[in-house]
Amino acid sequence: MKDQIIAPVKGTRDFYPEDQAFQNWLYAKCKKVAELFGFQEYEGPILESLELYAAKSGEELVKKQAFTLKDQSGKTLALRPEMTPTLARMVAQKVNELVFPVKWFTFGRRFRYEKPQKGRGREFFQWDVDLLGAEGPSADAEVIAVAAFFCQELGLSPKQITIKINDRKLLEKKLLEIEIPEEKIISTFRLADKKDKMTKQEFLEFAQEEQLTADQAKALLQILEEKNSFSQSEYLKELFAILKKYGVSEYVEFDPGIVRGLDYYTQTVFEIWDTQGQFRAIGGGGRYDDLVAKVGSSQKIPGVGFAVGDMVVAEVLKANRLYPQLSFNPTSVLVTIFSPDLQEKSFQITQRLRNNNINTEIFLNYLPKMEKQIKYADKKNIPLVVIIGPEEVKNNTVTLKNLRTGLQKTLPEEELITEIKTAFSLL
Amino acid sequence: MKDQIIAPVKGTRDFYPEDQAFQNWLYAKCKKVAELFGFQEYEGPILESLELYAAKSGEELVKKQAFTLKDQSGKTLALRPEMTPTLARMVAQKVNELVFPVKWFTFGRRFRYEKPQKGRGREFFQWDVDLLGAEGPSADAEVIAVAAFFCQELGLSPKQITIKINDRKLLEKKLLEIEIPEEKIISTFRLADKKDKMTKQEFLEFAQEEQLTADQAKALLQILEEKNSFSQSEYLKELFAILKKYGVSEYVEFDPGIVRGLDYYTQTVFEIWDTQGQFRAIGGGGRYDDLVAKVGSSQKIPGVGFAVGDMVVAEVLKANRLYPQLSFNPTSVLVTIFSPDLQEKSFQITQRLRNNNINTEIFLNYLPKMEKQIKYADKKNIPLVVIIGPEEVKNNTVTLKNLRTGLQKTLPEEELITEIKTAFSLL
Repeated sequence: MKDQIIAPVKGTRDFYPEDQAFQNWLYAKCKKVAELFGFQEYEGPILESLELYAAKSGEELVKKQAFTLKDQSGKTLALRPEMTPTLARMVAQKVNELVFPVKWFTFGRRFRYEKPQKGRGREFFQWDVDLLGAEGPSADAEVIAVAAFFCQELGLSPKQITIKINDRKLLEKKLLEIEIPEEKIISTFRLADKKDKMTKQEFLEFAQEEQLTADQAKALLQILEEKNSFSQSEYLKELFAILKKYGVSEYVEFDPGIVRGLDYYTQTVFEIWDTQGQFRAIGGGGRYDDLVAKVGSSQKIPGVGFAVGDMVVAEVLKANRLYPQLSFNPTSVLVTIFSPDLQEKSFQITQRLRNNNINTEIFLNYLPKMEKQIKYADKKNIPLVVIIGPEEVKNNTVTLKNLRTGLQKTLPEEELITEIKTAFSLL
Repeated sequence: MKDQIIAPVKGTRDFYPEDQAFQNWLYAKCKKVAELFGFQEYEGPILESLELYAAKSGEELVKKQAFTLKDQSGKTLALRPEMTPTLARMVAQKVNELVFPVKWFTFGRRFRYEKPQKGRGREFFQWDVDLLGAEGPSADAEVIAVAAFFCQELGLSPKQITIKINDRKLLEKKLLEIEIPEEKIISTFRLADKKDKMTKQEFLEFAQEEQLTADQAKALLQILEEKNSFSQSEYLKELFAILKKYGVSEYVEFDPGIVRGLDYYTQTVFEIWDTQGQFRAIGGGGRYDDLVAKVGSSQKIPGVGFAVGDMVVAEVLKANRLYPQLSFNPTSVLVTIFSPDLQEKSFQITQRLRNNNINTEIFLNYLPKMEKQIKYADKKNIPLVVIIGPEEVKNNTVTLKNLRTGLQKTLPEEELITEIKTAFSLL
């Protein structure tokens, strides 16, 4: 009979123990770096009302890219495509209780209804780091430094990674100079964000379809490539000066072409890229000074933050030979069962080991041959095997076999725990 | 202006840092106990096709309780109401690669579209522990022992917690004896599962609505309360004997009224309850020998496992005064900024501390008074504050203030890291 297994949903992922070990490793790295900077962990719901995203995350993201569903009252809900609106809502709800600046991070699932591709599924994980209630470039520098430290923690050097930074206010000024009207600034930001996805010619044509004149389209392209414009932003100059004090200058550069697709960014915008440009952006973020007010708070709380995606990090680590080799079986010892009448003894030893915090398995199928049990330990990469046969029971001893070294010894039962702890510290 | 904050979705939860600290604590307990027994961590998608649940988890759970949505091709997807069907699918997919018995655990979100109530939201977390590929009561005993160890790990004694165990095959035999036809066995299991939610009179009426005769309804009630029937099940006798060897006898008892609502259980079923019966079941599970085949595997892989819900665990811990007091700010040190011209020095010290793995914050708003910065540290429960004023800069010293003891001392800059590590080890 052939298997006809019900298929997983396209773009979702199964995390077998070896995959989950990577997720845990990545989460631990994110947590370590965030806590080094004093960020606290939080989480939110996966379901939010669609309203929370509409007109805040940008039209495209909400209408084209969100997984939506209706509740029984007919209200439209969305599986969160990103975390920042939830964060803004949570901060708005407790604005009078929280101590500002709020420094929070989270690592969790996001959902986007786009075509699954390399480095991006429909269901993926993101690490979000945000700082709310502080204005000015020193707060921006703090979160950008977190991103740089994270790259360093992963072993990625400035030769492999660049954090590209821009100032939307600078770009806005330049757009007004080329006579793009104020009401078209946001849509032009979205347009500019697409530049790297097409050739120059395609971009010029696309810009004109989006109602720029031919001259404006050309001027826009020039603005997005004008590497020296950075000195015209006092904000950016100060930001880069602080990043230097943080010791992360080598990771950062000005890039007039970084705009970001989301509508809510108000000033600084940045993206983390592999220097080869081989992958999509590893992460991105920026300053969003109006978002907390937009979700309904009467107080304006400035914010700045970024998110990093798990799938692209994995790709970049692999390409740079930095993907970790991780152990994914927690078991230290397998206690075997010699024969049915000696099973009780094996259960006793197993429980004694567990009571001493030694991760222990006991073989669970009926009447297995010793050979089969040792093979099981070997296949599951369990380093130590305990054997209790009739001789051992008679003499109050146990036999401990080390599958890594091939050595085995018989020792008094009361010495087993110490022996295992010693063997383990040597492995 | 009054706040008009966009509301969260009913039945979802926000995890502020103090709440997230509890989730992390609970997850760590689950992981520790699971790994003690050699279970490996895995995860799966939150979105599955509805097909995966239909006729496997039981009609009610799927049709009434699942959050469903349609993808662009019109296929119905569900937010996973439980984990076992995903697990069965994952095991079926790799049945020829996995080493059996597979011992896996996971801790993640589940979704049920039911009325939010005490101990149960629409979005909640469950810890799932499963063992696949082993038949017989020793495998059942292994997972029940994990549940008992978990209670112990939380500080819950057999006086506070009971694991109630039954055998569906025994119940089936008794149902056939009272002439309930074979095709009604599963629906009668579901009926029996509802007994504790109503009075005896209501149950008798309800059973008759569900097409039992008045005599059958009475006989069913008697079966569900017959405390001595346990000795008629060889399987249960062996199971309880092994649980005794595991040293967890005090946590377990036979209960003929435990049936479980899910259709896929084939033999052992059990539930974890507070002995007072004050809360809903903390967890439950059982043996499901046909599920892997039902999701499409050509090989029959027996399985046994259970799940525990996070919200009811929290309630039970609170009621028993065992809810943990947890720290939720990772920051050890706040580096203050004395004046704008000394900001650079503060940044340098901050980075030096971070480079030495000391979780450090620097005050980020413009020109704050020293008093305000110390108040921030105090409110955020940051124990140590570093002050670098003009005197300190001149003498290459720093001042370290311990907010817990109120003591402060000025010391050479190069001694700061050692001093902080010492102070922290004493806190």
